[in-house]
Amino acid sequence: MAGLTQKIAVLGSTGSIGRQTLDIARTFPDRLHIIGLAAGHNLKLLCEQIKEFKPRFVFCQGGPAQLPPGEYEFMGIEEMAAHCDVDTVVAASSGSSGLMPLLSAIKAGKKVALANKEALVTAGEMVMTLARKHHAQIRPVDSEHSAIWQCTLGEKSAPSRIILTASGGPFRGYSRAELAGVTAEQALRHPSWKMGEKVTIDSATLMNKGLEVIEAHWLFEMAFENIEVLVHPQSVIHSMVEFADGAFKAQLGVPDMRIPIQYALSHPERWGNDTLPKLDFTKISRFDFEQPDYSKFPCLRLAIEAGRKGGTYPVVLCAADEVAVDMLLAGQIKFTDIPLLIDDVLVRHSSASHPNIEDIIQADTWAREAVKEAVKQERLHC
Amino acid sequence: MAGLTQKIAVLGSTGSIGRQTLDIARTFPDRLHIIGLAAGHNLKLLCEQIKEFKPRFVFCQGGPAQLPPGEYEFMGIEEMAAHCDVDTVVAASSGSSGLMPLLSAIKAGKKVALANKEALVTAGEMVMTLARKHHAQIRPVDSEHSAIWQCTLGEKSAPSRIILTASGGPFRGYSRAELAGVTAEQALRHPSWKMGEKVTIDSATLMNKGLEVIEAHWLFEMAFENIEVLVHPQSVIHSMVEFADGAFKAQLGVPDMRIPIQYALSHPERWGNDTLPKLDFTKISRFDFEQPDYSKFPCLRLAIEAGRKGGTYPVVLCAADEVAVDMLLAGQIKFTDIPLLIDDVLVRHSSASHPNIEDIIQADTWAREAVKEAVKQERLHC
Repeated sequence: MAGLTQKIAVLGSTGSIGRQTLDIARTFPDRLHIIGLAAGHNLKLLCEQIKEFKPRFVFCQGGPAQLPPGEYEFMGIEEMAAHCDVDTVVAASSGSSGLMPLLSAIKAGKKVALANKEALVTAGEMVMTLARKHHAQIRPVDSEHSAIWQCTLGEKSAPSRIILTASGGPFRGYSRAELAGVTAEQALRHPSWKMGEKVTIDSATLMNKGLEVIEAHWLFEMAFENIEVLVHPQSVIHSMVEFADGAFKAQLGVPDMRIPIQYALSHPERWGNDTLPKLDFTKISRFDFEQPDYSKFPCLRLAIEAGRKGGTYPVVLCAADEVAVDMLLAGQIKFTDIPLLIDDVLVRHSSASHPNIEDIIQADTWAREAVKEAVKQERLHC
Repeated sequence: MAGLTQKIAVLGSTGSIGRQTLDIARTFPDRLHIIGLAAGHNLKLLCEQIKEFKPRFVFCQGGPAQLPPGEYEFMGIEEMAAHCDVDTVVAASSGSSGLMPLLSAIKAGKKVALANKEALVTAGEMVMTLARKHHAQIRPVDSEHSAIWQCTLGEKSAPSRIILTASGGPFRGYSRAELAGVTAEQALRHPSWKMGEKVTIDSATLMNKGLEVIEAHWLFEMAFENIEVLVHPQSVIHSMVEFADGAFKAQLGVPDMRIPIQYALSHPERWGNDTLPKLDFTKISRFDFEQPDYSKFPCLRLAIEAGRKGGTYPVVLCAADEVAVDMLLAGQIKFTDIPLLIDDVLVRHSSASHPNIEDIIQADTWAREAVKEAVKQERLHC
């Protein structure tokens, strides 16, 4: 069995996806060997993870002095992602910090289980070009993209259309007035998925779905006009594809991130896992569908527009959203300020076309400052 | 293009599936070449088809004297199914007459687009054993089995479970009293699918779904306890499979038999076809699901039981059902008599295990006589 063991580096091991990845690794100790753990600032949890999984390589944001000594090698995150002993990199760092280690893993030709959204959104062209060049296999972890991937397995023809399902978030059906009054606490209560804070807020604004449209565009080389967003509140159908002959395929399951995480590691196999919840159609009586409300959830429209325009617009979108969500969580702005702030910054941006890393970093830095400036100047309320 | 043209013999060309197959062939004249047509008694339509498609081989039940002379060779149906110039046999003859030509096609190692249900139900073990031996590829045409097949493409692991969807037929939700009063005309009005008369009545009794369970058992080597029937009145999800990891896949589409017929011919490709209707999720607001009512639709239970018991029980089930449906259409029995008659005959049957062709023919003949006898003796009303 040892020869078949996959050696895994988990980047972002203390986040929601990282922790659930370790849950899967715990269930399959003969198949999955955690040899690297990289985390940000949650040192307490990282120490517990080191104790349990005994990785060879460890990284944390604050540097080696933050961690008690142990039988591991402290290693830079980009170096870990490219290390020759690593088979699979789980790229689950959050936000824009995920891009550089992802590029490092891709250039080393690794299998990458990709959970970080921002890398594809901000640098999709670069990421996919490098992945093709270095034969790095990108396996999506997001339930929607995993669904699309699973639905295209064994198909000789690419799909003609993608239908990306969305739960609609906790505020589906809210009036404008109700939306104006929602709090960060309410936005953090997602009706179907258990996720990190940033992505939970993004799900409430539908920014998350917009970012997923851009991801799908790059991952599956699909034109934006052939990606449709469909609200499906039960979150059981994780997404669908349509083929040229009118046949659709959908992937379904209990909304539990461990299912797509496990598949990104087990592919092309399916591993029986009794710890995962199963759909029970004797208890399901209906699925609902509705069109997304672009006017009440302008983040969705802003994201798709930024994706279509390309260049560094998606970088600005992501950076502005990251800052705006932080401000919401800190009680500095209102829920409905988020799209206003992002729109304000996008309108003022001068985009670079076919951006390189420097362009991306520059646009990211500019956007973060621009949002803070806008809030200081109370531009929102002009 | 000529080298890629598939040469097709359509067995049952004047039936519903046969006519829709020719519709597809009409759309793709460069890809599909109809070289054989075999029909029963609808000579008028067969003559029109001969005129349009100019096949090399023709068969009709009544013999060559029934047809005007032409530039074709009259040929026995089994010979046609095995002819070396035929690439693909569309096995769409209805009822038990479909078995012998199917076996002939399989022994010749043909690709078979299989629409005839009875062959797999009555002789599944034999059919699948021969198909493996002669490397004949059986491609299901039934929308449900096509869906299951499409969902397993590219999967390394077989599914752990099959969820066979059912529209529920025109009498879903009827009371016992209402069911007792339904007429053949009402039973012929299927809510979602346009099909032949026999299969439409079988859909109303749910016998059709029971036969499909047995087919799925053989086609996908799935134990009966892992095949679940789920009523889905919209008939958009054509069936689902579950994998060991809790992931489900579904295939969906407008309920139109031409989609699975085309796929059985185009596989592994998908051909764009503007004449086929497309699903439009901007117009779909919900899917419903419910459990089938085995007590009100006893044919479903009878079929699954016969499938589980195996031997010649499914032969008797099919033959008794064929006779009973004919009697309903002729106004000789009531709708609710169908399961009573079938049950009566199954109970009296002595099954052969691992039946050969002779056992099958014998059981078929016995069952037909036994049903007629039962009706004559008015055993139903004892």
